[in-house]
Amino acid sequence: MYTEVASRRYRVLHPRPVYVIIVEAEGKVNAMAASWVSPVSEEPERIALALDKESYTRELLAKTEYFTVNVVNERHVELVWCVGTRSGRETDKISECGVRLAPAEKIPSKRLGDALGWIEARVHRVIDDIAEDVDLIIADVVAAYARSDAYNPRYGWELAKAKILLHASGRAFTTPGRLIIAKRG
Amino acid sequence: MYTEVASRRYRVLHPRPVYVIIVEAEGKVNAMAASWVSPVSEEPERIALALDKESYTRELLAKTEYFTVNVVNERHVELVWCVGTRSGRETDKISECGVRLAPAEKIPSKRLGDALGWIEARVHRVIDDIAEDVDLIIADVVAAYARSDAYNPRYGWELAKAKILLHASGRAFTTPGRLIIAKRG
Repeated sequence: MYTEVASRRYRVLHPRPVYVIIVEAEGKVNAMAASWVSPVSEEPERIALALDKESYTRELLAKTEYFTVNVVNERHVELVWCVGTRSGRETDKISECGVRLAPAEKIPSKRLGDALGWIEARVHRVIDDIAEDVDLIIADVVAAYARSDAYNPRYGWELAKAKILLHASGRAFTTPGRLIIAKRG
Repeated sequence: MYTEVASRRYRVLHPRPVYVIIVEAEGKVNAMAASWVSPVSEEPERIALALDKESYTRELLAKTEYFTVNVVNERHVELVWCVGTRSGRETDKISECGVRLAPAEKIPSKRLGDALGWIEARVHRVIDDIAEDVDLIIADVVAAYARSDAYNPRYGWELAKAKILLHASGRAFTTPGRLIIAKRG
């Protein structure tokens, strides 16, 4: 009934939301796709982001403490694929992938202009020794924004309107389907 | 068009998969619900789990290095709500919530008997100072298993069969809807 998963075992933990991370430093802006992102604490509000040490985003993030985590929906799938499969060191992904930028509200950074929502973050700490090629970025949530027509302050995203993009594997993405309400106790 | 999110800003990063974490130590077994879990590296394969320092799971995890991360589907929503809203210190959640246990394959621990899949993990490191009340557990993936009829070794979960449970907020859960394939480049 069960098979052992022999490789890419992280896929067992997918699908998960895929975000567009935007960082700006010294006049350069880069965007990447990331789904290895998670809230980690509520007080203070912090998130963690696993980042390839060799990535261009990491290089820029050594020159600024600020970045945005942009929540996207099914309409952004080609943009996500584009920024997720190129290196910003070799191409200008902002123009090549058609990334619309807008200024962040409370940090000196850019955000995705037509995102569903975004978090403005400031690096709190970098944990550089959990794996040879990964830095785990722990960041403070400075501010967060969501599209007024798709986010309810009491309940969070209105799933049917938000259609948040989740990454399964490779080119396969999905988005939330039906709402399920827990009844018990 | 956008509203600032003033509280519980982590909700902007939901819905995300919700897992059942099972830990066994000194003859006691506990189950909890967690969605602040993420893969963090591929080489070696490691995951991160944000855990309340005061939780019973944390207490047991001080007595063993092993735990399982169980992937659940829409049929488990009441079980997830049950184990997510009680403390194992006060009640035996395994019996009260109807958690079917089975032995893990490669670690001395239990897993959810009717999970969609699970990861067997061993604590690599505890980062205890990212927030006053949270320990970030970094763990090695020892093994992973998935239901043969719902997981494709090449592509991962077959979403329509797996119906993996995602947590939105409060009692609201969801599950993946349609498959979206990126075409570009």
